[in-house]
Amino acid sequence: MTTLPKVLAFDVFGTVVDWHGSIAREVDALQLGVSGDEFALAWRAGYQPAMQRVRSGELGWTLIDDLHRLILDELLERFGIRHLDEATKRHLNRAWHRLDPWPDAEPGLSRLKAQFMICTLSNGNLGLLAEMAKRGGLPWDCILSAEVFRAYKPDPATYLGVARVFGVRPQDVMLVAAHHDDLAAARSCGLRTAYVERPLEFGARQPKDVSARSGNELHAKDLLALAELLEC
Amino acid sequence: MTTLPKVLAFDVFGTVVDWHGSIAREVDALQLGVSGDEFALAWRAGYQPAMQRVRSGELGWTLIDDLHRLILDELLERFGIRHLDEATKRHLNRAWHRLDPWPDAEPGLSRLKAQFMICTLSNGNLGLLAEMAKRGGLPWDCILSAEVFRAYKPDPATYLGVARVFGVRPQDVMLVAAHHDDLAAARSCGLRTAYVERPLEFGARQPKDVSARSGNELHAKDLLALAELLEC
Repeated sequence: MTTLPKVLAFDVFGTVVDWHGSIAREVDALQLGVSGDEFALAWRAGYQPAMQRVRSGELGWTLIDDLHRLILDELLERFGIRHLDEATKRHLNRAWHRLDPWPDAEPGLSRLKAQFMICTLSNGNLGLLAEMAKRGGLPWDCILSAEVFRAYKPDPATYLGVARVFGVRPQDVMLVAAHHDDLAAARSCGLRTAYVERPLEFGARQPKDVSARSGNELHAKDLLALAELLEC
Repeated sequence: MTTLPKVLAFDVFGTVVDWHGSIAREVDALQLGVSGDEFALAWRAGYQPAMQRVRSGELGWTLIDDLHRLILDELLERFGIRHLDEATKRHLNRAWHRLDPWPDAEPGLSRLKAQFMICTLSNGNLGLLAEMAKRGGLPWDCILSAEVFRAYKPDPATYLGVARVFGVRPQDVMLVAAHHDDLAAARSCGLRTAYVERPLEFGARQPKDVSARSGNELHAKDLLALAELLEC
């Protein structure tokens, strides 16, 4: 790599933390009569359509915590789960604050942090990301979120917002993500991109195709491998 | 203390970092023919009036980095310093990203972090605060700034914004600051308050009155003493 980026911005859900395994475990523990695997996938499947309702203007600006709750209420209805009290529903909804990092995340980020400014760039809200980081020991230099830019990825305001916050050019920022659409949107704003393989993002029953695609400057098995590629 | 707060929000300039000593040192090192002490005090004296131009609507939303630069350009003119090139001026302006923590700050925050969510609540912009934290080893769980709320302290949107971000009540948030006006504004929004003595905030030649005033729930010599008071 001829010149190194200055800032590494990380997608979080799926890239840094294992949402599927974490949500499935919490749902299984509640013994709701539905498989945690199925419930986790259904909850996450509601995520893009919910954000689309905000992007389209049908909903005003709404935090992910509140979108997660809208989806949860629909799912509980769909699965015929009607016995949960409000405190339990609130606790379950905040399972998204308690997602476990992938095993390489904390050591990988710690190595990368020694050489780069590392921040989140997630559609998750600030409180969610801060609680997740505190619980999981994720050593962010700064937590950036759609909440700061009042726009959800892939809105250019989010990618360009990272460069603006740090007073650098878009090409000084590298987005690290396990999702090609996120990376492509970042590239179209002039950011550099690194793909991270997360074959089990959707659980062991739905392994994801993580083969390399053109366009990404880096392709890494995990965040420790990314640190190697960036010579940390 | 009967019930503990959940979130500690910290003012930064003066409370956590020594702006006077840090700016004075950088100015002295440049050998501009003006005393660093005097220049630091003059720069800081321009800070509230500059924010007031934003609050009043005379200026649109402007980051502290840009306000610092406006003030710097006025000061260079006032002190008759006309030989600095643009790169030097930019570097000097970013001295505010390189402020040294008070000696108790990192160890104190580390102890407090073990028990509380700790965040900044500063008028400084996000990039400034993140670079300062990285350089000084300040272990924030989350960096919150006027930039997130698009309002400068003492606007209630900033104090109430901290509670909103973390999904807690105002009385679950304690503002920690070395400035009584900041603390009073937070209290009027329902936050709890802790005063931290920083007698040398304006330098050794202008010691500050740090005697206790009524209204603050806690009064601590420094952040290690605050950790003691909060039983960390």
